[in-house]
Amino acid sequence: MRIVVAMDSFKGSLSSVEANQAVCRALEGHEVTAIPIADGGEGFLDAWLAAHADGTIIEESVMCLDGTRRVARFGFEPSTKHAVIEVAETTGLTLLSHVDPWRYSSVGVGHQIVQALERGAKSITIGLGGSGTMDGGKGLLEALGVRFLDANGSVLSTIPHQLDEVASIDWSGLHPRAREVVWRMASDVQNPLIGESGAAYVFGPQKGLAIDAVRRYDRILDHYANRFEMDRRALPGAGAAGGIGFALLQLGATYVSGIEEVIRWSKLEEQLEKADWLITGEGKFDTQSFEGKAPYGLARLAHTYGVPTLVFTGQSDYTAHMESGIIAIFPIVSRIMTLEEAIWEAAPLLTNAVQRVRHLMEKAP
Amino acid sequence: MRIVVAMDSFKGSLSSVEANQAVCRALEGHEVTAIPIADGGEGFLDAWLAAHADGTIIEESVMCLDGTRRVARFGFEPSTKHAVIEVAETTGLTLLSHVDPWRYSSVGVGHQIVQALERGAKSITIGLGGSGTMDGGKGLLEALGVRFLDANGSVLSTIPHQLDEVASIDWSGLHPRAREVVWRMASDVQNPLIGESGAAYVFGPQKGLAIDAVRRYDRILDHYANRFEMDRRALPGAGAAGGIGFALLQLGATYVSGIEEVIRWSKLEEQLEKADWLITGEGKFDTQSFEGKAPYGLARLAHTYGVPTLVFTGQSDYTAHMESGIIAIFPIVSRIMTLEEAIWEAAPLLTNAVQRVRHLMEKAP
Repeated sequence: MRIVVAMDSFKGSLSSVEANQAVCRALEGHEVTAIPIADGGEGFLDAWLAAHADGTIIEESVMCLDGTRRVARFGFEPSTKHAVIEVAETTGLTLLSHVDPWRYSSVGVGHQIVQALERGAKSITIGLGGSGTMDGGKGLLEALGVRFLDANGSVLSTIPHQLDEVASIDWSGLHPRAREVVWRMASDVQNPLIGESGAAYVFGPQKGLAIDAVRRYDRILDHYANRFEMDRRALPGAGAAGGIGFALLQLGATYVSGIEEVIRWSKLEEQLEKADWLITGEGKFDTQSFEGKAPYGLARLAHTYGVPTLVFTGQSDYTAHMESGIIAIFPIVSRIMTLEEAIWEAAPLLTNAVQRVRHLMEKAP
Repeated sequence: MRIVVAMDSFKGSLSSVEANQAVCRALEGHEVTAIPIADGGEGFLDAWLAAHADGTIIEESVMCLDGTRRVARFGFEPSTKHAVIEVAETTGLTLLSHVDPWRYSSVGVGHQIVQALERGAKSITIGLGGSGTMDGGKGLLEALGVRFLDANGSVLSTIPHQLDEVASIDWSGLHPRAREVVWRMASDVQNPLIGESGAAYVFGPQKGLAIDAVRRYDRILDHYANRFEMDRRALPGAGAAGGIGFALLQLGATYVSGIEEVIRWSKLEEQLEKADWLITGEGKFDTQSFEGKAPYGLARLAHTYGVPTLVFTGQSDYTAHMESGIIAIFPIVSRIMTLEEAIWEAAPLLTNAVQRVRHLMEKAP
C-alpha cells in the first residue's frame, strides 16, 4: 500500500511530526510518505524544513513576548535567500506561564526579521498562529526601527506595549531592507483587526483578555489602527496573531493560506496522485473540523484524486464523512480514561488505533 | 457483504440480543445473520429460542433463590419434548439486591424442572452460569422431592440451606420421571466442586463470600458432598453455579460446553461457510478473553472457514489477534467518558463503532 500520512498536531500533546511518527510506527512494511502539517501556527517551520532539503535553521537569541531572552529558530534557504519565521517560536502562547495581552509584545518576531534581513533575505514568509500577544504588531515594527510616540512626543515602551497611548508613528528609522523584501504572511485566520470578528472579540479571551474588557481592547486597537496612514484594518488576516497580520500588511505583505502553503511545499498533490490512502487527523474532530481546519481540507483534496481518507483523532462522535472521502473517523481512546491519561498516552494510543485498522486496510483493494 | 453477527453480552449493559441489534443497525443494506450468544449463563434461553422456530416459552411462578416468588421463563419444544432451563432466571445473582451465599437456594431451578417434567419433558438442558447461590444444588434436589436430614433425622430447611447440618439424604421421594429424563448441563465452567479451583475458592467472593470464610465454606461443601453415595465432586462442571452442576451430575447429567451447544443450535457453521465476515465482541476484551470466552472461540471457528473476524468491545488495549483470524479489535469508547456513561450509552456507542468500520469493510474484498 502507498499511504500519505499528514497528521495535524494534537494540541497540548503531540506535534504534527510526532503524530506522523506515531502513525508510521503502525504501518511498517508499507510505502509511507509522512508530511508535517501546519496552518501557520506551531509546526509551520518544521513543515517547511521537511519540504526543503537545503533549508537551514538559524538559532539566535531574541527577546520573547514577555521580555525574556531566548534562543529561537527560523528557517533560511541560502539558494533562494528565502526566510521562514514562525510567530509561535518567539511570541507563542505556550511560552507563557501567565497570560496578559495588555503587556506582551511581538518584538521577537521583529528581531528574527532583522536577523533574516542581515543575512540578505529577499523574501520572508511569516507563519501566524498561536501567539500570546495582542499588540497589533507594534513590537514587530519597533524591532524594525519604527518609533511609536505619545501625545508629548515621547517614545512609548515595547513592554508593556501602551497601544492606547500611541499618538503618532515615526517611520524614519525603518530598516531600509524592509521596503525591498517580499513579504508573505501565512495563516488560517482571515479575521480583520477590529470589530466583532476582530482580534479582541474572537481571540482575546483565549489569550487572557477578560470578557468585560473585550470591547475596550477593540476600541484601543481601533485607536492604534487610526495612527497608520494606510487603512489595512479590514484586510483578511489583519487580525491574525493579535494584529501582527495588520503590521505585516502595513509593510506590504501578501496573505496566503498557511495550509495551502504547506501543501505546495510538500508536493502533497504529487504524492496523492499515486497514493492508496490518506491518513490525517487532529486532537479533536468535531463540527469545527469542517470549518476550514487542515484534516478536512486535506481529505477533500485527496478525494479529488480518488484517494480515500482515514481520520484518527483524540475523540470524536463522528464516524465518517463520505462526501469528503473520509470513509472512517477513529477516536484513539481505547478505554475509560481521564483527559490527562489520554494526553499523556497519546502517541501509543494513536499507534494502536492505526494498528487496529492496518489489517482492514490491507484487505481493501 | 454477508456478515454473521454474534455478540456476547456486555455485562451490566447489553444482552447478547441487544448487542446484536446495535451492531446490525450499522450494517443496513447488507446480508446480516444475527446469532445470540451465551455460554450457559444469561442469554442461554434467548439463544435457544432464536434457533428453534417451534420453541415456546413457559412462564410460571416459582420460588427464587432468596425465597421470593416470581414468574420465571423456561423453554419447551413440544415436537421433541425438550426443555431448556436457564439457572439465571430463578437463581441469578442479578435478581438480588443483597448477596448472601450462606442463605440462598437453587430451589427455583428445581421448580422449573418439575414444571417441565409435568409437561412430559423427555430431555432437559440446563444452562449454568450467573447464579447467586452456593448450595451445592441442594434446593434443586429438594424441589424434586429429595429430603436432607440432620443428625436427629429432622428435615433441614431450604432457605437458609444449612448445608453444614446435612447428615443423611433420603432419595425415596425423588420425582419418578427424574430418573427417566435425559439430563444435560451446559456451562463454560469446568471447575470441580471442592478445593482451590472449586466453587467456594473461585466463585465464592463474587457471590458475597468473605475471603476469610472461603476455606470454611469449602470444608462445608466437602462435608455435604460426602453425604452422597456417588462421588461426583471432581467431575468437570461439578462446581458450576455454586454446585448445581454437582447435583445434576448426581442425577446423571452430561456436561456440555454452553457455547458449543449454542453454536450447534444456531447452525453457526453453516452460516460461516458462506460469510464474508464475523462480527463478535463482549464488554471487555482482555487476557481472560483468550481463556475460553465466547468471542475468541467464535473467531477461531470462523478462522477455520477462512472468515475474518472483527471484535467490538467496551474497552481493549489489544489491536488484533491474527493467529485466530481477529484482524481488528475496536473499543467502542469514542471520547473521554466515565464508566457509567459508557454503560449507559453502550448501544449507540456500539452502533457508531461499527458504522466507522462499515465503509472500510465494503472496500475489502
